[in-house]
Amino acid sequence: MVSIPGRRQKKRRKEVIKRAAAIGAAPGVLVADPQAEASVFSVIGIGGGRGEYHQGVSLDDALARRAAWPLFWLDCSGLADIEAIRRIGAEFSLHPLALEDVVTTDQRPKCEIQADHAFFVMRMLDRAGDGEQLSVFFGDGFVLTFQERPGDSFAPVRERIAKGAPRLHAGRADYLAYALIDAVVDAYFPVVESQVARIEGLEDDILATVDEDQVPELHAVRREMLGLKRWLRPTRDALGTLLRLDRPWLHAETKAYFGDVQDHVDQLIDTNDTYRDTASGLIDLHMTLSAAKTNEVINLLTIISTIFIPLGFLAGVWGMNFNPELSRWNMPLTQSPYGYPLALGVMAAIAAGLLAYFRRRRWL
Amino acid sequence: MVSIPGRRQKKRRKEVIKRAAAIGAAPGVLVADPQAEASVFSVIGIGGGRGEYHQGVSLDDALARRAAWPLFWLDCSGLADIEAIRRIGAEFSLHPLALEDVVTTDQRPKCEIQADHAFFVMRMLDRAGDGEQLSVFFGDGFVLTFQERPGDSFAPVRERIAKGAPRLHAGRADYLAYALIDAVVDAYFPVVESQVARIEGLEDDILATVDEDQVPELHAVRREMLGLKRWLRPTRDALGTLLRLDRPWLHAETKAYFGDVQDHVDQLIDTNDTYRDTASGLIDLHMTLSAAKTNEVINLLTIISTIFIPLGFLAGVWGMNFNPELSRWNMPLTQSPYGYPLALGVMAAIAAGLLAYFRRRRWL
Amino acid sequence: MVSIPGRRQKKRRKEVIKRAAAIGAAPGVLVADPQAEASVFSVIGIGGGRGEYHQGVSLDDALARRAAWPLFWLDCSGLADIEAIRRIGAEFSLHPLALEDVVTTDQRPKCEIQADHAFFVMRMLDRAGDGEQLSVFFGDGFVLTFQERPGDSFAPVRERIAKGAPRLHAGRADYLAYALIDAVVDAYFPVVESQVARIEGLEDDILATVDEDQVPELHAVRREMLGLKRWLRPTRDALGTLLRLDRPWLHAETKAYFGDVQDHVDQLIDTNDTYRDTASGLIDLHMTLSAAKTNEVINLLTIISTIFIPLGFLAGVWGMNFNPELSRWNMPLTQSPYGYPLALGVMAAIAAGLLAYFRRRRWL
Amino acid sequence: MVSIPGRRQKKRRKEVIKRAAAIGAAPGVLVADPQAEASVFSVIGIGGGRGEYHQGVSLDDALARRAAWPLFWLDCSGLADIEAIRRIGAEFSLHPLALEDVVTTDQRPKCEIQADHAFFVMRMLDRAGDGEQLSVFFGDGFVLTFQERPGDSFAPVRERIAKGAPRLHAGRADYLAYALIDAVVDAYFPVVESQVARIEGLEDDILATVDEDQVPELHAVRREMLGLKRWLRPTRDALGTLLRLDRPWLHAETKAYFGDVQDHVDQLIDTNDTYRDTASGLIDLHMTLSAAKTNEVINLLTIISTIFIPLGFLAGVWGMNFNPELSRWNMPLTQSPYGYPLALGVMAAIAAGLLAYFRRRRWL
Amino acid sequence: MVSIPGRRQKKRRKEVIKRAAAIGAAPGVLVADPQAEASVFSVIGIGGGRGEYHQGVSLDDALARRAAWPLFWLDCSGLADIEAIRRIGAEFSLHPLALEDVVTTDQRPKCEIQADHAFFVMRMLDRAGDGEQLSVFFGDGFVLTFQERPGDSFAPVRERIAKGAPRLHAGRADYLAYALIDAVVDAYFPVVESQVARIEGLEDDILATVDEDQVPELHAVRREMLGLKRWLRPTRDALGTLLRLDRPWLHAETKAYFGDVQDHVDQLIDTNDTYRDTASGLIDLHMTLSAAKTNEVINLLTIISTIFIPLGFLAGVWGMNFNPELSRWNMPLTQSPYGYPLALGVMAAIAAGLLAYFRRRRWL
Repeated sequence: MVSIPGRRQKKRRKEVIKRAAAIGAAPGVLVADPQAEASVFSVIGIGGGRGEYHQGVSLDDALARRAAWPLFWLDCSGLADIEAIRRIGAEFSLHPLALEDVVTTDQRPKCEIQADHAFFVMRMLDRAGDGEQLSVFFGDGFVLTFQERPGDSFAPVRERIAKGAPRLHAGRADYLAYALIDAVVDAYFPVVESQVARIEGLEDDILATVDEDQVPELHAVRREMLGLKRWLRPTRDALGTLLRLDRPWLHAETKAYFGDVQDHVDQLIDTNDTYRDTASGLIDLHMTLSAAKTNEVINLLTIISTIFIPLGFLAGVWGMNFNPELSRWNMPLTQSPYGYPLALGVMAAIAAGLLAYFRRRRWL
Repeated sequence: MVSIPGRRQKKRRKEVIKRAAAIGAAPGVLVADPQAEASVFSVIGIGGGRGEYHQGVSLDDALARRAAWPLFWLDCSGLADIEAIRRIGAEFSLHPLALEDVVTTDQRPKCEIQADHAFFVMRMLDRAGDGEQLSVFFGDGFVLTFQERPGDSFAPVRERIAKGAPRLHAGRADYLAYALIDAVVDAYFPVVESQVARIEGLEDDILATVDEDQVPELHAVRREMLGLKRWLRPTRDALGTLLRLDRPWLHAETKAYFGDVQDHVDQLIDTNDTYRDTASGLIDLHMTLSAAKTNEVINLLTIISTIFIPLGFLAGVWGMNFNPELSRWNMPLTQSPYGYPLALGVMAAIAAGLLAYFRRRRWL
Repeated sequence: MVSIPGRRQKKRRKEVIKRAAAIGAAPGVLVADPQAEASVFSVIGIGGGRGEYHQGVSLDDALARRAAWPLFWLDCSGLADIEAIRRIGAEFSLHPLALEDVVTTDQRPKCEIQADHAFFVMRMLDRAGDGEQLSVFFGDGFVLTFQERPGDSFAPVRERIAKGAPRLHAGRADYLAYALIDAVVDAYFPVVESQVARIEGLEDDILATVDEDQVPELHAVRREMLGLKRWLRPTRDALGTLLRLDRPWLHAETKAYFGDVQDHVDQLIDTNDTYRDTASGLIDLHMTLSAAKTNEVINLLTIISTIFIPLGFLAGVWGMNFNPELSRWNMPLTQSPYGYPLALGVMAAIAAGLLAYFRRRRWL
Repeated sequence: MVSIPGRRQKKRRKEVIKRAAAIGAAPGVLVADPQAEASVFSVIGIGGGRGEYHQGVSLDDALARRAAWPLFWLDCSGLADIEAIRRIGAEFSLHPLALEDVVTTDQRPKCEIQADHAFFVMRMLDRAGDGEQLSVFFGDGFVLTFQERPGDSFAPVRERIAKGAPRLHAGRADYLAYALIDAVVDAYFPVVESQVARIEGLEDDILATVDEDQVPELHAVRREMLGLKRWLRPTRDALGTLLRLDRPWLHAETKAYFGDVQDHVDQLIDTNDTYRDTASGLIDLHMTLSAAKTNEVINLLTIISTIFIPLGFLAGVWGMNFNPELSRWNMPLTQSPYGYPLALGVMAAIAAGLLAYFRRRRWL
Repeated sequence: MVSIPGRRQKKRRKEVIKRAAAIGAAPGVLVADPQAEASVFSVIGIGGGRGEYHQGVSLDDALARRAAWPLFWLDCSGLADIEAIRRIGAEFSLHPLALEDVVTTDQRPKCEIQADHAFFVMRMLDRAGDGEQLSVFFGDGFVLTFQERPGDSFAPVRERIAKGAPRLHAGRADYLAYALIDAVVDAYFPVVESQVARIEGLEDDILATVDEDQVPELHAVRREMLGLKRWLRPTRDALGTLLRLDRPWLHAETKAYFGDVQDHVDQLIDTNDTYRDTASGLIDLHMTLSAAKTNEVINLLTIISTIFIPLGFLAGVWGMNFNPELSRWNMPLTQSPYGYPLALGVMAAIAAGLLAYFRRRRWL
């Protein structure tokens, strides 16, 4: 009867609270999520105006290249290889709790600051709105990214590195981290736009014809927007942490860029708020319009019943089987020559009177 | 059945999140929106008690005049000419991200401060409530404005310059910027007034007769007000940024004027809040009043049915074809001389009893 | 059908956003509202333990008296005489924007501080709840008040001056300003009390009998309280500005009094919040109770229909005109001696069974 | 039809905004509420390990004892004796505005700090939830309490003084003030517990059988909780003022105790919030469950009508009086030997079909 | 008719405001809750790389071991032994108010700081969601825990001590306190997950078939989540107090761990907020979908009635007993050869017309 929202939303729902794996273990002790995908490493080195990109290298190879480059970006897609993640942590002096956050996905977006690097966790959405956790570490000369599975929003950044974009080739890790985080936030826009389009489509639909299938769809969109809000607000706060930061490896110029990302997140939050409110308004609108439709139906029922039930009663009265021969005071009209047309006339007069009454009451 | 809100709202809806063009490009790299209108430049120079106004000049001509005037206002209507915008950016040392915001319209209103100028983004509404983005840069001796298309709210300012208004001719860029922003905020008032008038009109309508067409109209107004709120709140914050600022090119006296604009925005926000709340109250009112109307209809249906269905049953009983000759205990009254009037009397008594019952229950 | 809220609310509604007159003019240039009333000046001088009160004097006379008195209070009722207002502004060095606020009524309440005086704008209500704007300037030795029309809440203050109240005769302008603002806030109490009384009256009414006229009345009260809230919250903030102020012409002792006014405003806000919430609860209550009434009606309809429609069908069956002579298997009972009473018995049994069923379901 | 909430709530409602008496008088001039009860004074002196308690003494007697005791607590129950209150104010240098607050009951809870004493206003509830205003002044060596009528929550404190509780006998006025305020807050707990119990009782009731009397009761509880919230939040703030205070007559150790009272108020606020929210949820629950009951009734109506109205029509058709002798194409079955059973069979088939349809639609 | 939420929720409800026992007693005087369970003491000593665990020891034995170990953890399960608790308080110089909070369960979570130790109160949930109060004191070298009954969330911590986890064996009391609090917060996750699962299950159910039993279940989950929120928010604040603290016995490294616990609480709060909002959305969805179902039923009723009531009336008219011999203008068709089929045709035409009308109105 009612369309069941499909596979995609189902998957989204699953991503809510994942801490089962880590609970019970000592804090800071890494426990792989049994469903984590195998880790694939890729490394990009930037320096001297050149960029080098190696995908699918071993961790040893990757780390060996670190010294060779002023700016070193190591990406780990898939979080199953706990041992490798621990080695990266040791190499870059990452905090054990940060590593635990990396492998315990569905973290709330946040930014944590250490003496020599920042740890930024956020949500990366693909075009279908499915998400995975992205963890970014950046300090002096290195950027580390961890994601749940291959496939990310970084294509434009890689392309710009390949094309030799000057700002990326300036060799500042904070700018590279900004470029990655910006690319992830940019990928929220098509998702939000599609939600907006669905709501506006539903608005047109509801104003055209009210339909009971519209409500589950509205509910589904609102729920998706509610889910998105969960990631947007803490992302904004995490960016605020960066903006207030004063460390040598975070340059003032780059902060302006992070401020720009925060503006984008603000815009997404505004749109999310406005359209969730609009969706609530649409639920009210739907309720009122379908109540109006029901009223129309009930009005018709009442008019028909109110006219024909009394007339039917009259017909029934004239259909009673009283014995006309025994009666002193007989059924009126039944024994008279013009009885039948007069009876019909009485009925027509009653019907006309009721119709006039309804018109006066504006029910017609 | 239900009136579809017209063209204007449709257009408004489109203006929600426009970042498609810029996504994928490097940050700070200008990408023209393919639908942007051609850029037209006009320049106003003020100094020595005189004002000069040149519309539709080339960018070269415009910039050439800069040195000649203590106060220089360059307006760019239409954002298609990316190259010219980049040149203006270079000439006035504007931040690449600010330029990106200029061409990526539908920015959230904001104010960004640089060492030697401020960058103010806001929404400019025309009388129909359609909006375009206005970007204002102002520093020592210059004001730059960028708008999406020709046609703006600046007519009163231009007129005052033409008339030689002393404060504008004092040659302070911050005061000119204030005058422009104030003119834009002033243009919100007729839009809000028309929304208020529509809500008050609907209130009178609903209290007079409830009608299913009122709900889509209410929804449309609330949605427009919700859309307006999106621009108002950040505009307030942006003005607050200016008020807290301490720079030589923003004079204390001018801040008092910006404070005045902020008061106007506060007033608009208050009105917006109050009337959105009123509109919600009207939706409740509509719901209750149309439920009351339905109740009235259902009451009538019940009264008519409750009276005539039992009577109709009685008439049916007296109309049954039992063979009177074979019966020992015959249908009462059918074979008696006063049977018919007595039967009608029984029916009338039942009807009267039911009516009395309804009156006691206050259903009549 | 439904009572239309009367003239008073209508008038209130009009007072929403009045900036039409000032828009288009240069900021700080005074433009009279075409509907402004003629200005009438009155002046009170206090000093040496005496108070002098002159009503309806010319502005020249009024200002001429200024030097004669340590404390000088000039009141201007009616805002049509722009020229006079401008002269007062010049005499007391008022800011042009403040003067613009004085004549552009329906300002949001606020307090602005200058070096040598404070400017306080608020709403003055009469007993019917109609409002006008009151602007108060006070500095060292002078208080200026501007109101939209004659008739104000200052009678108790004038009386206390006439009676020689010592604190008023101490000659401090800030205390006089406090006394005036306090008198205006005191005039809110009867208005709020009448709203509270209306809500409590409606509560009793609704609990006694639900009635469709109650909802527009509830809506009207909520709307009035919403309107009042618009003035209360900013008035609280404006008083807060005064309390945080440190100027020689605002004495610490007087601040305690302003704190007392703020307490009163807080109390009004609390009451307003609580009773608006109560009014919302009453709308829910009304909805539920009238739904309960409808249910009762529908229940009756169902019981009557469910009993008599099947019985009517049975009567109809026994009234069918099958030819008894041709029938092999005739209508049961119609040809039997006790058919008729048996048929009635069958009907009575069905009715009794249905009634028992309804009783078990608790629908009776 | 619906139970009217009783006397207690009625009384509570009256206690909303009482400023009528004081309005019009000069600020700080005491005006007795005409309904104020006669003042009764009692005094407790503590010192040297002993406590003395005198009830119903004259004010002269009471004040005369002040010097004799290191810690002096004067209680005034009943606020009619304005002259005595003024004398107390003079004796302890209380601020005239504070005295005005003492006699103008229904003040918002607050704490005001003077150089040598604090003034604390709050609401004292009895077990039935009725309230009166309690004003507490405390400074070095003295505590003054003012209440609207005899009967208070101080019994446990008096008992502890009588028993010689060491902390109370240490002679610190701030600790005695704490003990009094704590006793008053403790008296909120049974009131809140009874509200919680009523809501939980209603919850059980509604889940058992929905009933239209539950809604007014829910409304009454929500309203009482709303009223309580009005006192709780400002009491919390008033305690916060004390906690931030730094005066010699408020010892750090006592502050820990005031912090404990604030914890209790926080707990009351939490419970109030949670249960008001629960009550709102119950209103929704009630609405949905009674809508479900209506649906059930309407379903039955529809099923009965939909089955018997068509059958009744068929019976009516077979009951029409067409002249069988004149007809060429006669009413089917009426002239055939098995007509009657066949007609009944047709009807039974239709009924069975409709029932099957309803079962498939899950309406049965 | 409707499922009553079971024993578990019932028990939860009881745990709302428990201060009855302590009210009336002097503050800081310990009064045992008459329902408190008997106290059982267990002690864990850590030092020199070893851990010792003694359960069920006497308090004397327990305290005697304190000196032997650098890190001493004393746990007291069951709060009936007031005397023992008082002795512990004396031994560790705990504040009397803190001890009162320990035995007055259902405290709002909070953290209070003394010179040499911190006092942390929170809620400990078991898998069924039932809670008890946990009080933790920790200072230099000792951790004290008090719980309402045996059975806790500390198993993983004890196991790690037994296994010789290095961080726990470093002998820092703050880290042990962190480990305990973290274990308690971890136990919230399965409870929240089960709530989320119930809501998602209900969502699927409602979208499949609307059912009146879903609403009480929704209400029950929302209520449980509301109850949980009461513990979560203050727990977050209490952790914030620790994070801002600067004491020698709280190491900077441990603070990072407390920050991690706060992140978990934030995540729980986010999930709680999002899913309570979702549950509200589901109530709306349920309401709309069951209204849609009712509309469908009413539509059918209207269609059937609107078609068959007029037809029934026609059949009644043709069934009236007018005497054909006396009539001049007889009932049409009754005396004609094709009367009967023509009459049926008229009826069929009317039915077809109405059906066409309904189809045009989209009611079919």
